[in-house]
Amino acid sequence: MTVKLTRAALETMDERDELRTFRDRFHLPDGLIYLDGNSLGAMPKAASERVRHVVDVEWAQGLIRSWNQYGWIDLQQRIGAKIGRLIGADEGETIVADSTSVNLFKMLAAALKLRPGRRVILSEPANFPTDLYMAEGLIALLGGDHELVLAEPDEIESAIDEDVAVVMLTHVNYRTGRMYDMAKVTERAHRAGALTVWDLAHSAGAVPLHLAAAGADFAVGCGYKYLNGGPGAPAFLYVARRHQDTVAVPLTGWFGHADPFAFEPSYRPASGIARALVGTPPLISLSALEVGVDLMLEASMSALRAKSVRQAEIFAALIEQEVAGLGFEIVSPREADRRGSQVCLSHASAWPIMQSLIARGVIGDFRAPDVLRFGFTPLYLGYTELWDAVAALRHIMESDEWKQPAHHARLKVT
Amino acid sequence: MTVKLTRAALETMDERDELRTFRDRFHLPDGLIYLDGNSLGAMPKAASERVRHVVDVEWAQGLIRSWNQYGWIDLQQRIGAKIGRLIGADEGETIVADSTSVNLFKMLAAALKLRPGRRVILSEPANFPTDLYMAEGLIALLGGDHELVLAEPDEIESAIDEDVAVVMLTHVNYRTGRMYDMAKVTERAHRAGALTVWDLAHSAGAVPLHLAAAGADFAVGCGYKYLNGGPGAPAFLYVARRHQDTVAVPLTGWFGHADPFAFEPSYRPASGIARALVGTPPLISLSALEVGVDLMLEASMSALRAKSVRQAEIFAALIEQEVAGLGFEIVSPREADRRGSQVCLSHASAWPIMQSLIARGVIGDFRAPDVLRFGFTPLYLGYTELWDAVAALRHIMESDEWKQPAHHARLKVT
Repeated sequence: MTVKLTRAALETMDERDELRTFRDRFHLPDGLIYLDGNSLGAMPKAASERVRHVVDVEWAQGLIRSWNQYGWIDLQQRIGAKIGRLIGADEGETIVADSTSVNLFKMLAAALKLRPGRRVILSEPANFPTDLYMAEGLIALLGGDHELVLAEPDEIESAIDEDVAVVMLTHVNYRTGRMYDMAKVTERAHRAGALTVWDLAHSAGAVPLHLAAAGADFAVGCGYKYLNGGPGAPAFLYVARRHQDTVAVPLTGWFGHADPFAFEPSYRPASGIARALVGTPPLISLSALEVGVDLMLEASMSALRAKSVRQAEIFAALIEQEVAGLGFEIVSPREADRRGSQVCLSHASAWPIMQSLIARGVIGDFRAPDVLRFGFTPLYLGYTELWDAVAALRHIMESDEWKQPAHHARLKVT
Repeated sequence: MTVKLTRAALETMDERDELRTFRDRFHLPDGLIYLDGNSLGAMPKAASERVRHVVDVEWAQGLIRSWNQYGWIDLQQRIGAKIGRLIGADEGETIVADSTSVNLFKMLAAALKLRPGRRVILSEPANFPTDLYMAEGLIALLGGDHELVLAEPDEIESAIDEDVAVVMLTHVNYRTGRMYDMAKVTERAHRAGALTVWDLAHSAGAVPLHLAAAGADFAVGCGYKYLNGGPGAPAFLYVARRHQDTVAVPLTGWFGHADPFAFEPSYRPASGIARALVGTPPLISLSALEVGVDLMLEASMSALRAKSVRQAEIFAALIEQEVAGLGFEIVSPREADRRGSQVCLSHASAWPIMQSLIARGVIGDFRAPDVLRFGFTPLYLGYTELWDAVAALRHIMESDEWKQPAHHARLKVT
């Protein structure tokens, strides 16, 4: 027997929520229920001030001197080190650079170079497309001797054989929220002599991670989702210490040089993780990222995870309680340890339903072809909002509001 | 006979300068003489307001909706098109993306793919190091069948033979200011069946460029120097229309996909220049760049160039007039049509002299091993400042102020 959920019960949970005070540290638009922090995280209030300082003081007043005076030159390392604490990396294993896609290319190429003679990059068909695209582009660039092999999640482990150079997976699937057991898959890969490249886009800041303990080889991740780093925030990457002195990162830019300002004619890789840097980083965006990371570090990851699991369970229960029989199917795993910080529903009319929800101020994501994605960001999301979100969904379905033509218009970004 | 320059004469030139009003559009710190706009351009006042809007409204209030509502999704194309007007590209030949280093990798790899069987990338030993490094990294990734061949600037044209796949040059040299004749070198390359990749880091916004008319194949450039786009502003790239439908950019990210939000499992390149995009761009930094580009577009490039040439000539004349016999040698070409918008001096004690100048509020750049670099940004630099800069240099030399130990300390960034 399940107890019926009520709005009042959720209000009580908000009152008792030990993370509740973090909500005030973010700017959240009035009347909006934001279940899309896994696409673009909300703005920490301190980010506004920090960016203003970078622009009006560091750029405008300090000009070129700010590279030294305000430590711009160390910013990628400094923020990278902080992210390392969030993902269970050892010291000096993480750095901020470029975009997730570019970092994936760097890490994948580096990993392949460490496994000469092996020709397979193993991934899954439902991986985030840019990861598959980047692998395709790398394979084509290398002349086609490699192959991208795709196996369904349940068959990944058995597909790891002696041909596999690299297992390239997104830890938490962007569309379903399904989460891999990183330690288990990595162990299996290593047993077959393969390496792993993990994409942490939907994991960093969302679920507890222990990259070093899991034996992960390489990883990349995103700054603008759960880390609340701002739109298009620079990404990060991870290289296990044991690979750092032998790894060849193919994008050998001056920021990854052992002595960038010596202007030597030949490339000499920096020691450690710094060799994964390439060009000059976008400092305004980079500075905003640090604010998001700092705020995340103030919270306990186990408290965040406990709340995230609870929110996902409540949301799923509300879907079953409030909109049963209306064509929704929960496509995320129901077991918490196999799921990230989101719950996804499939529905034949997912697109207009999501547009209709957004028009009502409940923001989730549509993911082609038929998925409504709802992300939970326990740092700033309350329990009562889950009730109100599902109540809006119920209203939309019962009133047929989602059938209005306006909600069928295509947008550039979905 | 040369007429002796006086400060009063330069003041008169400032009064008569038709570009003078642009100076008020920038924030310039009191008492600072900034001859380093070719390292990091000054801040347009409007950039401060624009960035605040992007952070406090577009991010904080609009959240994910801003991709459509504020046109984030088109920003790389829009700013790229504006830069295209500054560099003489045809419509649809330019786009903003990544860093200059990453773009160079993309363009170089794309060019090599168009010239199978040819094994040489031709450049010069004094090219900006990151360009040489990126070529090295690409060659290593491709398995070593290619070779980076370096020829002195005067010997580049005769070094272009049937083995050369790509001529990769920086149009204006970062250290000497020496400028290539783009049309002539490109014509020579094409005659030998080779392609060109031009680095416009010290050219865009500094000298008139006619990429389409010059027949250039590929180019990359920097947003944070003469374009005043902010620290680490995203870079741009150019692909001649005739190559766009055949070119394979090796970093095949979702932003370069024909339909990014269809989440198709296989990569399908966008038509036109958009296939050169990779991952999500850093939107705060990107937005600041547009302000700098817009401001540059308000001025006439021929007026800017005329003033730049005049400033360089006056600066060189002042060096000869005021600090003759003190160990300085002008290492930039004296003929305007062979020089960008800078004048460089060599001096055995270049490092402490530059540190001493900076301490006096005259900011130029040291470039290893022995170069003092002075950049002229006619959009906001006055003539009288040239006098004051050289007067400071003279004072430092005559007073031996540069010999103070403090000026010998190494900084992280030089």
